[in-house]
Amino acid sequence: MTETEKNVYRLNEKFYKALENGDIGLMGDIWLKDDTVKCIHPGWPLIRGWSDIRESWEKIFESGQLGSVEISDTFADVNEEIAWLNCIEKLNHVIGGQVVITMAQTTNIFEKRDSRWYLVLHHASPMPVPRSETSSETLQ
Amino acid sequence: MTETEKNVYRLNEKFYKALENGDIGLMGDIWLKDDTVKCIHPGWPLIRGWSDIRESWEKIFESGQLGSVEISDTFADVNEEIAWLNCIEKLNHVIGGQVVITMAQTTNIFEKRDSRWYLVLHHASPMPVPRSETSSETLQ
Repeated sequence: MTETEKNVYRLNEKFYKALENGDIGLMGDIWLKDDTVKCIHPGWPLIRGWSDIRESWEKIFESGQLGSVEISDTFADVNEEIAWLNCIEKLNHVIGGQVVITMAQTTNIFEKRDSRWYLVLHHASPMPVPRSETSSETLQ
Repeated sequence: MTETEKNVYRLNEKFYKALENGDIGLMGDIWLKDDTVKCIHPGWPLIRGWSDIRESWEKIFESGQLGSVEISDTFADVNEEIAWLNCIEKLNHVIGGQVVITMAQTTNIFEKRDSRWYLVLHHASPMPVPRSETSSETLQ
């Protein structure tokens, strides 16, 4: 794996760490902070610009329903200054004491600016949860 | 608009023409034909490689349910050799004599190879249809 590929994978992992921990500061480190960046949450229309995207993450984090996040089926296309990475997100939500699993198929686009990589587009779309992944576990 | 931007918009329009007309030949002209290209239809998991993507479009076209397609809310980020374009697709399906409208929020990634642009990723995710867009029109 090249150094550039490692950087892109690292940034992608950092994004999911921010998501899992509801860490808006870390999320802010990852995104390019300009008016052209784009975010599509599952089932939502596109949100454009860091200011509105930040607000959307704050609302998601404030709901307090997002638990652990697992990613799988990762494919990366890495060029010198632009890269995109596809993966499946398995999200464990905690709603009314129950663990509810949702899954999303994701495209993340990264851009290199002044020798640093940034997230410039996040597109997550809902996908069916295989029966083997569902859980009716009740939290103790 | 630069010549490069025009090329990308033109290719995007060609993609929706192929979709609307169920034209697998035109679809084949648009996609880069290699094993790394990616397609995510609304609600589907990712399909990788032109051969499987072609098969998925053939199945969609064979269903004969796809009518006209309108695109709106287009944003393009165009670099020298890589571009991505976001838009909303309004799809008119004809099912049992009724027009059924669905909408998708889309990310299309294009790459320039040997001075020609190609589609290398199509990600369409379902989004709610505003009440003003719904239709219960019966075909004559």
